[in-house]
Amino acid sequence: MSRLEEQIRFILEVDKLKNIVRQNYLADGSRKEDDADHSWHLALMCGLLSEYANEKIDVMKTMMMVLIHDLVEIDAGDTYAYDATSHGTKQMRELAAAQRIFNLLPKDQAEWLRSLWDEFEEGRTPEARFAITLDRIQPILLNSESGGKSWREHGVKLSQILKRNETTHEGSELLWEYGKELIIKNVKTEAIIDDSSSE
Amino acid sequence: MSRLEEQIRFILEVDKLKNIVRQNYLADGSRKEDDADHSWHLALMCGLLSEYANEKIDVMKTMMMVLIHDLVEIDAGDTYAYDATSHGTKQMRELAAAQRIFNLLPKDQAEWLRSLWDEFEEGRTPEARFAITLDRIQPILLNSESGGKSWREHGVKLSQILKRNETTHEGSELLWEYGKELIIKNVKTEAIIDDSSSE
Repeated sequence: MSRLEEQIRFILEVDKLKNIVRQNYLADGSRKEDDADHSWHLALMCGLLSEYANEKIDVMKTMMMVLIHDLVEIDAGDTYAYDATSHGTKQMRELAAAQRIFNLLPKDQAEWLRSLWDEFEEGRTPEARFAITLDRIQPILLNSESGGKSWREHGVKLSQILKRNETTHEGSELLWEYGKELIIKNVKTEAIIDDSSSE
Repeated sequence: MSRLEEQIRFILEVDKLKNIVRQNYLADGSRKEDDADHSWHLALMCGLLSEYANEKIDVMKTMMMVLIHDLVEIDAGDTYAYDATSHGTKQMRELAAAQRIFNLLPKDQAEWLRSLWDEFEEGRTPEARFAITLDRIQPILLNSESGGKSWREHGVKLSQILKRNETTHEGSELLWEYGKELIIKNVKTEAIIDDSSSE
């Protein structure tokens, strides 16, 4: 198989990302978002909001990172952030998926995307930290805009959201400040269950 | 309104791109693709296939260009490539949309995205030529993979596809060669109507 044929095979395989449905709704609440929609939104946000990264980032690298960060879900499925049971097996399922999917590409590009994905998962570089912040903030924006539809459906508690977002500030203090304001707003409207007094 | 608030307002507004449905199907034929799915796919293809651009391109700029190239369809709708009637009013509708949508952003970013979109529409730079090639090749890949479903439904003729792709080679000779092979394959399977002998 030629280099281009391998690349095209990969490009057609990852078309399946469009069929992976997330738990959060579009801003208008009309349907749940798919992973490709989500990844597009993150890449655009990356291009527009990089000025708020805590540290200087390589924007192009971060953009590529968010474009591919969910590809493993083609095999592993979307694991809902607040589903503790599935989280137990998430890493194993995603590692196997990474092994299969990235290796459809020619060796140099397979290694490139795999290292970008590993970097995202490890969250230890400025680019990974900012990408993770975008990945956390985007569903907060959409959930809040849709009146908290997905939070309400799953009975999500404030403590769960805060735990999920423990490191969100590490990519951008300012974006996390903005996200926190939206979370507080949605606690007030009772879209998010306030369990803070019971702690 | 603060700079960040303007940016977030734009980011929420363009969420509507996920509701703009294109004419072509996903590779598995299960449903039609939405514009955000399509834009994600182009950005990823841009990152992986830039080595085939005829001229040296700024990959990050081209990526941003494909991420935003269809935003005007939020107001103007998707105009099917082979719908001659709608094409008459397409430019006017899209210019009005560009005026409204990009200007939701702070001035510097509004001007940046507007100039990227103008550049794409004019198709006169290496980046725009490559972005247009990707925009033409991607639906050919998906249409071919789905057995020509969308071509069959619309009774698309070979002459229409060739006319539509008159400049596709300008971004990448090699990608157009690949696209042409798929077109010929789909003429053989009669997914595309062969009107070449009648000319």
